[in-house]
Amino acid sequence: MMTTYVSMEEIRKVCRNLDYSAALVFNATPDMVRRACEDAKAFQYAAVPVFPSYIKMVAEELEGTGIAPQCVVGFPSGSETTFVKTKIAEQGLRDGAKEFDMVIHVGRLLAKDYKYVTEDVRAVAEIAHAAGITVKGIIETGFLTDDDKLAAVECLAEAGADFVKTCTGFAEGKGTAHDIALLKKAAAGRLKVKASGGITCVEDGLALMAAGADRLAGRNPITAQLRAMGLASL
Amino acid sequence: MMTTYVSMEEIRKVCRNLDYSAALVFNATPDMVRRACEDAKAFQYAAVPVFPSYIKMVAEELEGTGIAPQCVVGFPSGSETTFVKTKIAEQGLRDGAKEFDMVIHVGRLLAKDYKYVTEDVRAVAEIAHAAGITVKGIIETGFLTDDDKLAAVECLAEAGADFVKTCTGFAEGKGTAHDIALLKKAAAGRLKVKASGGITCVEDGLALMAAGADRLAGRNPITAQLRAMGLASL
Repeated sequence: MMTTYVSMEEIRKVCRNLDYSAALVFNATPDMVRRACEDAKAFQYAAVPVFPSYIKMVAEELEGTGIAPQCVVGFPSGSETTFVKTKIAEQGLRDGAKEFDMVIHVGRLLAKDYKYVTEDVRAVAEIAHAAGITVKGIIETGFLTDDDKLAAVECLAEAGADFVKTCTGFAEGKGTAHDIALLKKAAAGRLKVKASGGITCVEDGLALMAAGADRLAGRNPITAQLRAMGLASL
Repeated sequence: MMTTYVSMEEIRKVCRNLDYSAALVFNATPDMVRRACEDAKAFQYAAVPVFPSYIKMVAEELEGTGIAPQCVVGFPSGSETTFVKTKIAEQGLRDGAKEFDMVIHVGRLLAKDYKYVTEDVRAVAEIAHAAGITVKGIIETGFLTDDDKLAAVECLAEAGADFVKTCTGFAEGKGTAHDIALLKKAAAGRLKVKASGGITCVEDGLALMAAGADRLAGRNPITAQLRAMGLASL
């Protein structure tokens, strides 16, 4: 996977900003969730995103590490009701979540029902901010034109989200440098940008950070690369 | 798509038992949901499954037709908390759902935590049955060995589910005749069987009903086939 030299400083920069979604899969067992937490501790990843039913376990595994238990909300469909999204967020907080990654209602965005999209995000953002934590809005770029992406950024900024994130990884679409640059410019400092979907090595992460990404998502291939380089931890 | 002759009686048999999931996609717009309801009314499908945020619309579109607004619960991950699954079901009922298709916690099944899987289904089944409606348990066969599938059937029967259903369509795995026969035999009359995943024509549906399926799921290709045969309605 490595085709160029990367420095330890570059590796640390990627890992420090990586949400490690190795266990964010439909068949995640408790053992897979615990292994993801072990990997995150070894390589000092930023967060471990999991489905809501595993947040309590991740909060226990990561206690005292500074790595965030990250709860996905309405993931990956985005099509739960706003009421249910708030219930997911409330239980996530009770279970120890320190970040939310919510999926916007993509179908309503495509229908240009921006009020719906904004209010849906706002409901979760208010719960997050009252608890002092951040919320990312996943816009699922694979379904969107560039104009849709710009509209999504406006909805998220208006709703008070903290980040715009490209993809769930469960639909078409990857975090591309084009999209990161587009979202970064549109956000104009109002939102940070998270690149997700198809990031499989440190070099991918560096390229997307160079394009403007503040955070990254990655799965097992990143950890496998670090181990293949002979690193057991950072 | 048609390679053999099918009779109008066979076509009706498939359509009458088909859950028409054309709008059960992450980018479903309100227009797509309404079109799915129109197709269902034209061809007398059994139900229109949608994500929870569209149940109210589907209930209005299908009122008085006898076609069921079907609410998916914890779909497609299965990994929402039991609490959230009950909140989805409760709001689904308020919005007019007449059937639930819930996804079991696949990871807990793989970890052989059958008590978790059973209680998770039971919580939703109790809400459904108190309202006089049915619940299907989707086991996501693509992740399972045959032994896992048999264990899942026992959990569903113990929990009081009405159907075992093969797949969400959002992971690996299709409704195969092998699985339908296996599930039908294991269910031994305690559960009905729904085949889902990869059913693209009337012939697929007939083959799976011959193998034991009581219900089927299908998307746009089924409607396209009927229209290509010159049928505008049934």
